[in-house]
Amino acid sequence: MTAGTSETGTADPFGRLQRRNGVEFAVADLEFAAFGRQEIRLAEHEMPGLMQLRREYAEARPLHGARIAGSLHMTVQTAVLIETLVSLGAQVRWVSCNIFSTQDEAASAVVVGPHGTPQEPRGVPVFAWKGETLPEYWWCTERLFSFTDGEGNVVGPNMILDDGGDATLLVHKGVEYETAGVVPTVADDDHTVSEEARVVLDTLRRSLAADPQRWTRVAKEIRGVSEETTTGVNRLYQLAEQGKLLFPAINVNDSVTKSKFDNKYGIRHSLIDGLNRATDVLIGGKVAVVCGFGDVGKGSAEALAGQGARVIVTEIDPICALQALLEGFQVAQLDEVIGKADIVITTTGNKDIVTVEHMAAMKHQVILGNVGHFDNEIDMAGLARHPGIHRITIKPQVDEWVFPDGHSIIVLSEGRLLNLGNATGHPSFVMSTSFSNQVIAQIELFTRHEEYNRDVYRLSKVLDEKVARIHVQALGGELTKLSKDQAEYIDVDVEGPYKPEHYRY
Amino acid sequence: MTAGTSETGTADPFGRLQRRNGVEFAVADLEFAAFGRQEIRLAEHEMPGLMQLRREYAEARPLHGARIAGSLHMTVQTAVLIETLVSLGAQVRWVSCNIFSTQDEAASAVVVGPHGTPQEPRGVPVFAWKGETLPEYWWCTERLFSFTDGEGNVVGPNMILDDGGDATLLVHKGVEYETAGVVPTVADDDHTVSEEARVVLDTLRRSLAADPQRWTRVAKEIRGVSEETTTGVNRLYQLAEQGKLLFPAINVNDSVTKSKFDNKYGIRHSLIDGLNRATDVLIGGKVAVVCGFGDVGKGSAEALAGQGARVIVTEIDPICALQALLEGFQVAQLDEVIGKADIVITTTGNKDIVTVEHMAAMKHQVILGNVGHFDNEIDMAGLARHPGIHRITIKPQVDEWVFPDGHSIIVLSEGRLLNLGNATGHPSFVMSTSFSNQVIAQIELFTRHEEYNRDVYRLSKVLDEKVARIHVQALGGELTKLSKDQAEYIDVDVEGPYKPEHYRY
Amino acid sequence: MTAGTSETGTADPFGRLQRRNGVEFAVADLEFAAFGRQEIRLAEHEMPGLMQLRREYAEARPLHGARIAGSLHMTVQTAVLIETLVSLGAQVRWVSCNIFSTQDEAASAVVVGPHGTPQEPRGVPVFAWKGETLPEYWWCTERLFSFTDGEGNVVGPNMILDDGGDATLLVHKGVEYETAGVVPTVADDDHTVSEEARVVLDTLRRSLAADPQRWTRVAKEIRGVSEETTTGVNRLYQLAEQGKLLFPAINVNDSVTKSKFDNKYGIRHSLIDGLNRATDVLIGGKVAVVCGFGDVGKGSAEALAGQGARVIVTEIDPICALQALLEGFQVAQLDEVIGKADIVITTTGNKDIVTVEHMAAMKHQVILGNVGHFDNEIDMAGLARHPGIHRITIKPQVDEWVFPDGHSIIVLSEGRLLNLGNATGHPSFVMSTSFSNQVIAQIELFTRHEEYNRDVYRLSKVLDEKVARIHVQALGGELTKLSKDQAEYIDVDVEGPYKPEHYRY
Amino acid sequence: MTAGTSETGTADPFGRLQRRNGVEFAVADLEFAAFGRQEIRLAEHEMPGLMQLRREYAEARPLHGARIAGSLHMTVQTAVLIETLVSLGAQVRWVSCNIFSTQDEAASAVVVGPHGTPQEPRGVPVFAWKGETLPEYWWCTERLFSFTDGEGNVVGPNMILDDGGDATLLVHKGVEYETAGVVPTVADDDHTVSEEARVVLDTLRRSLAADPQRWTRVAKEIRGVSEETTTGVNRLYQLAEQGKLLFPAINVNDSVTKSKFDNKYGIRHSLIDGLNRATDVLIGGKVAVVCGFGDVGKGSAEALAGQGARVIVTEIDPICALQALLEGFQVAQLDEVIGKADIVITTTGNKDIVTVEHMAAMKHQVILGNVGHFDNEIDMAGLARHPGIHRITIKPQVDEWVFPDGHSIIVLSEGRLLNLGNATGHPSFVMSTSFSNQVIAQIELFTRHEEYNRDVYRLSKVLDEKVARIHVQALGGELTKLSKDQAEYIDVDVEGPYKPEHYRY
Repeated sequence: MTAGTSETGTADPFGRLQRRNGVEFAVADLEFAAFGRQEIRLAEHEMPGLMQLRREYAEARPLHGARIAGSLHMTVQTAVLIETLVSLGAQVRWVSCNIFSTQDEAASAVVVGPHGTPQEPRGVPVFAWKGETLPEYWWCTERLFSFTDGEGNVVGPNMILDDGGDATLLVHKGVEYETAGVVPTVADDDHTVSEEARVVLDTLRRSLAADPQRWTRVAKEIRGVSEETTTGVNRLYQLAEQGKLLFPAINVNDSVTKSKFDNKYGIRHSLIDGLNRATDVLIGGKVAVVCGFGDVGKGSAEALAGQGARVIVTEIDPICALQALLEGFQVAQLDEVIGKADIVITTTGNKDIVTVEHMAAMKHQVILGNVGHFDNEIDMAGLARHPGIHRITIKPQVDEWVFPDGHSIIVLSEGRLLNLGNATGHPSFVMSTSFSNQVIAQIELFTRHEEYNRDVYRLSKVLDEKVARIHVQALGGELTKLSKDQAEYIDVDVEGPYKPEHYRY
Repeated sequence: MTAGTSETGTADPFGRLQRRNGVEFAVADLEFAAFGRQEIRLAEHEMPGLMQLRREYAEARPLHGARIAGSLHMTVQTAVLIETLVSLGAQVRWVSCNIFSTQDEAASAVVVGPHGTPQEPRGVPVFAWKGETLPEYWWCTERLFSFTDGEGNVVGPNMILDDGGDATLLVHKGVEYETAGVVPTVADDDHTVSEEARVVLDTLRRSLAADPQRWTRVAKEIRGVSEETTTGVNRLYQLAEQGKLLFPAINVNDSVTKSKFDNKYGIRHSLIDGLNRATDVLIGGKVAVVCGFGDVGKGSAEALAGQGARVIVTEIDPICALQALLEGFQVAQLDEVIGKADIVITTTGNKDIVTVEHMAAMKHQVILGNVGHFDNEIDMAGLARHPGIHRITIKPQVDEWVFPDGHSIIVLSEGRLLNLGNATGHPSFVMSTSFSNQVIAQIELFTRHEEYNRDVYRLSKVLDEKVARIHVQALGGELTKLSKDQAEYIDVDVEGPYKPEHYRY
Repeated sequence: MTAGTSETGTADPFGRLQRRNGVEFAVADLEFAAFGRQEIRLAEHEMPGLMQLRREYAEARPLHGARIAGSLHMTVQTAVLIETLVSLGAQVRWVSCNIFSTQDEAASAVVVGPHGTPQEPRGVPVFAWKGETLPEYWWCTERLFSFTDGEGNVVGPNMILDDGGDATLLVHKGVEYETAGVVPTVADDDHTVSEEARVVLDTLRRSLAADPQRWTRVAKEIRGVSEETTTGVNRLYQLAEQGKLLFPAINVNDSVTKSKFDNKYGIRHSLIDGLNRATDVLIGGKVAVVCGFGDVGKGSAEALAGQGARVIVTEIDPICALQALLEGFQVAQLDEVIGKADIVITTTGNKDIVTVEHMAAMKHQVILGNVGHFDNEIDMAGLARHPGIHRITIKPQVDEWVFPDGHSIIVLSEGRLLNLGNATGHPSFVMSTSFSNQVIAQIELFTRHEEYNRDVYRLSKVLDEKVARIHVQALGGELTKLSKDQAEYIDVDVEGPYKPEHYRY
Repeated sequence: MTAGTSETGTADPFGRLQRRNGVEFAVADLEFAAFGRQEIRLAEHEMPGLMQLRREYAEARPLHGARIAGSLHMTVQTAVLIETLVSLGAQVRWVSCNIFSTQDEAASAVVVGPHGTPQEPRGVPVFAWKGETLPEYWWCTERLFSFTDGEGNVVGPNMILDDGGDATLLVHKGVEYETAGVVPTVADDDHTVSEEARVVLDTLRRSLAADPQRWTRVAKEIRGVSEETTTGVNRLYQLAEQGKLLFPAINVNDSVTKSKFDNKYGIRHSLIDGLNRATDVLIGGKVAVVCGFGDVGKGSAEALAGQGARVIVTEIDPICALQALLEGFQVAQLDEVIGKADIVITTTGNKDIVTVEHMAAMKHQVILGNVGHFDNEIDMAGLARHPGIHRITIKPQVDEWVFPDGHSIIVLSEGRLLNLGNATGHPSFVMSTSFSNQVIAQIELFTRHEEYNRDVYRLSKVLDEKVARIHVQALGGELTKLSKDQAEYIDVDVEGPYKPEHYRY
């Protein structure tokens, strides 16, 4: 029995799976590929980091032999990432890491590939469409792990590229339950277990029944994972602390060229894009409350102020609060200013930032949205339960919630990330900085995995600087060269890195 | 023979005219009305000037007896304007002043009215849909002049509300040709006469044949016109100088609360909205050339700089150029910087600002758009004629033009106003300042027309200040009150106006 | 009897008058000239407008024959103005228009002249020193009118260059009293007459006794006056309205290159300069209230925001208030925010803006200053009378006023213009735009006085554009040239002017 | 023989030492104390961190028994620091860490003390005056180590508070040479040894001769040092790496509330303050090149842009360069833009940033200054050696250097820190954040020295947040409180710290 016999081609509970020209996929419609291809072509121009890596490794193809399982929003930008991995020699399979975030034309274009047609696709297996159910989502994620080797055998990946950690989670939980020999059962009325957790348990229960060693075999093959986000990184650090991490991990999130660019400059762009597409309301002259002044909050405040809004910041962290004050923003508690706000944006990554009490106290037709993390940052569940509340959907992702007293508020994207829900997320250029780190991390882990332990690593500063350098050039910036003499004077190498590890930028 | 016999209900060459529940109209689809009504309701909240005027004149109804022929982009904001005029007692008919600018759901909602249904419309006759042909456009404009009086007779308007001056033009040209007894003929191969001019001549030729005194009768009834834009205002000043103006006109364009708000703060919002919806390209870090540093250019530069672009300004006027320099912008000639630009925006209202030579010298995938005026600001005709040029439509209003050397440029809205073509134009709040001036001008001319000559007037500063005051309150601003003593000290009235006529703000 | 016999060289009541090498003067110390000359030399580089006019008119010397009486702050910048007038052929005498505004080294350097020495001065007669008394001030002003002609006779000026209108006032009042044959007397206990008014009456009473036709003769010779400021311009308009204006006047204040540059960009620089030199207090993070949002208020708000302060604006004019809101500033009444402010700046030109009640309600160690106009903008007189108030002079122009409750406020420059009192006023470059208008106005009135009536004129827009053009070039800006075709399209001349008169910039 | 017999009161080679009312000192003039006291009083209001620490520890007096040797710019702000240390129970002696940085009135006021008079001083021994020679400087530093105990014996300090590390250096070198039994001699013509190094050797040679165990005894008593700057911190890390560090050290420089506030917001204020006081040149409209985009460069660029300059950045580090680009600044090499610049500011901390070749290529009257570190950042030595160069001192700290071709440049503060040389350095508020860290570090090391090894430590983040919190309150900011539930959700303590160590702010 080969590695893959447990994975049968017939497992298609949702009737979504297709195979054409030898390519397996589950996307909305391959006919969208042509438009997707146009978008990919334009995005390539805005992603100089990825294109430079393609040129740099065109001959070496360092990912030859890599089988990468990717779980990351299936957008146009991700399509450029996927095709970069392929051009570096990798075999790739892909799913989205969020049920709403797939751009269907991008998914289709990736399946078709740059040289294929909808009739004769030549691209990458993708299992993702906009608006999946939770069971569909986890079915897609499971498909991620069924590569085919040269002889047509089903084999697992040897690399994971993750955003939020769901692919990594499935492997770790799979191994845990296979080791225990059983998947825990949960009582139907146990409210401490979320719906999603039940779906994962069901998925693994079926898997265990079909092949009691599948995930154990899969895990052994994996050389490492590179992880994109804070949430996923936190999971990895916890696993490493507990000694349960099954393979090395690179924390891409904390590269400077990720966290200080994607988070700040990405949101500066996409926040107002989302607000404008959703509401067409003049931002200038409005009172905008930004909850949180981390990198995302900083980008949000700058964007709103740049459009002429008066920005008020709420913060728990006195250091960030002092930064906000010295940038000229009022720092206040939400309770105190809620009655003045015209726009309220959450950026914290925490929960219950805007409560139903806040919403009840807002002015008529306040615009409320989140760019922080989950939809519990704004208490959407509480809002829906509010006695006498009435919801009017103005258009997709724009809801007016009318309170019994007659005043209403405009909630964007049901409290989920409005820059993705009401616009198209971060633009290509900032994603190019983030994704270049991903590619570099994949090369690093795949080619030098023996030098890494089962721990969480960050990319070296010199790689961070390399990513930055490519993007500086793309924007026409001219870097100054350090002389040997100057380099010695400040005790660095002429080629960098130029700063100590704890430098804050 | 009554005033209207020349206007027959059967004149429907395009099969567009409908009548339902006694309301005549020509719009895309009345079923769009429900969505349009939602948008109108939300827009009302953002248009405090118009809503205040409704409250203020709820009893007086100073426009009772007015029959207003309105020619102005049939958008959601205009819908709020129309319904304000109606609530002040006016009878209204409406057309759009641009073949592309109608929002179909707004047009439908106006026809249906706040208390009607698609089956039983109770609103205002509108003749407008997105994407008219030129003959359709002028047919609509002609229909504007056929009101029905209490006895069902067709009568002309007694007021015009104009944007660009097309309604006013039709009356003046009609009278001119009726006086001459003939409409000029134009040879088919006379290239000095535009296609649109021919359509106007044809329209009036038919009119003259059907009723040789129609426009003469119409003109006599008209008490005045209020005009929205620079272009229309310039036509009015020319007519007045030549002694040909047939009725008084109020230049709304040059109210401070129009030109210094709509032009500057409106574009600050809608320029980047258009860029973002069209391209999703990160503005931060890009070199953006703004051609022209008038009010629109100032708003454009501020918007782009607020998003982190490096802005370079081109200017002919040394005073505006000096302002740009002192605001920290580089001022250069387009020829010198064209090779560095990533984004090029024209705001001048002049022609041939960006030539084909410029476009040929641009970097690959430069974004090129216009927020200035007509599509000759960028030489679109020249571009289309360029040998070997190849056009790829990425999506509606976004074209990639590929030059024979392989580099391409992205042109938005075919060189027309990208903030309207790629987004939804100026937001409601700034239109509220502009339209409040329109309503006040209509009241002024309708109720006190005897005090005006056949000349072009501006609204008094005290009315300008009134419009501003309403919008200050809406934004939560608290004005300081001048004491009697202070007012005397600076020699103004306690209630204003507070500045001399030549004050520049 | 020659024209000047009434003016005797012996009139030196304050022992200030000196003559050396044939040059008459009254300044602090000629030894300061060397330092002043250095400053003048550096300032010339920053005053490209004046230097360009010197080059342009080097041969024509259009002011040959002009005898210019100048009354304008005797600063380094004014020194460059004076020497420009001289290089254009004029004979010049000068006084300061404010008892505190003279820079002594500049006054001395002007007397010495570029080619003289303190022992052998070859410059211009100046009567000005820092810290004059009111009688000294008016004695200086009177000396302004005693030129010497080629034969050594005392003659009057034929041109006035004025700032605030004091020189013009003296002539008009002199003529009025000479016509009446008597100077009014004022009772000692008449509190409606200010101390300064009494000094003027005394001055003219002496003059009338010595020579009953002096001012009548002087007035006849004067071809015109160019006036720098709002206050002086208002006086001129009043005289013109009453038919009492004795010669033509050019209102330099309302040139765009004066009011929109000097007022806004000058204060943007000099406000924070004054604050910093006076207090060394970090502006970032502070709440700064700016009273008034005219050009000076706009520049003040921009400067403070640029340093990271949170700016709150107070306004009476709803149009300016709406601008402030749309620029992102809170607009509030001073009463409401006085308890939050750390810095309060008045910019209004009105009186009683900050009352003693406001000051009593301020936080401890608030910084309070004025850049608007007179010292009644902040009620300094009321403060000094406040029961139990205690004043501590920290250093010159910086006073701490301690209230009986123990809290204190820091008042700058005793409520007078802090940018002049605590720093050195507007920098050379913006004064170059203002003073270029002055020089052009002097040439215009001197050479073409016959074309002007006894009225108030503004310089033509084409001259305004000329001044701007010189300064654009100095900053390295490259203007775009209008083609003939484009000029026709927008109906302007290729060489300008480019905008209608009512354009607001 | 007591600890101090080697230190005799007669060692006064420069005739500077005074004793009055039992207080030993060497300052310019005690009569300056009254003005210094006023300044200290005002500064206290702007240093809420220090004042809060005084209140918090008023009873505990945790520094009782501490003998602190302080070497840090003897300014008004430092006076508030010194008096805070005293109020916490410490015995203190002080010197400046730079020959030019003493504010004489502050030094005097500290000696006099809040309750003393110039006749009867009751303050702290200070050995510092503006403009020391190098031998004087090191004599002062040596005096720092001669405390007097309760019985009048001379004893060493038990704590060092250092800025730049000179006090720490003297102890370490002293011990080194005492251990070796000899101080190295240097040949007179050995150009590799700086003048300052020779002075240090001479000082220690005399000390060794007088008391061969003095520094060994001193070092044993010292519980620790807190160090303010990058340069001093680097020295400490080197000593620690080599195992030569004699006592524990706390790196105050890398507290967030130091490096991200003092460096950035301090310079944002004091750069333009220095430029304005030095030159009075309008910053608006000028091309300003900022060399380096670290924290100091970021603050500089923001300050200049906030005044309307066009800022161009030079950088070696691609990450910082990419930040500059995304903030809208041009990034270029100095060679390429040197001919366009009007203002050039170095902020790098490296050497030879602006070379003589650059200066020779600058425009006439360019302003050149440094806020980075030493005067080798601009090649001042090279400039002085340039053939045919001519220096004109306009006023103290402002020199015009005229090149043989006639063009000149304005160099501020002879290439030393212009914000200190031409203005008064960073304002009190930012120094309050830095100095609060110093006080906390002193308490920590003095009271818990047994928990520290001979290594370099940073303050815990919770102390960083404490410092920030005090300053947030002082600016009126209202922090949001984390609920217990929220704290668990993001896995932090309710009271903080709120961020992981590697967080970049």
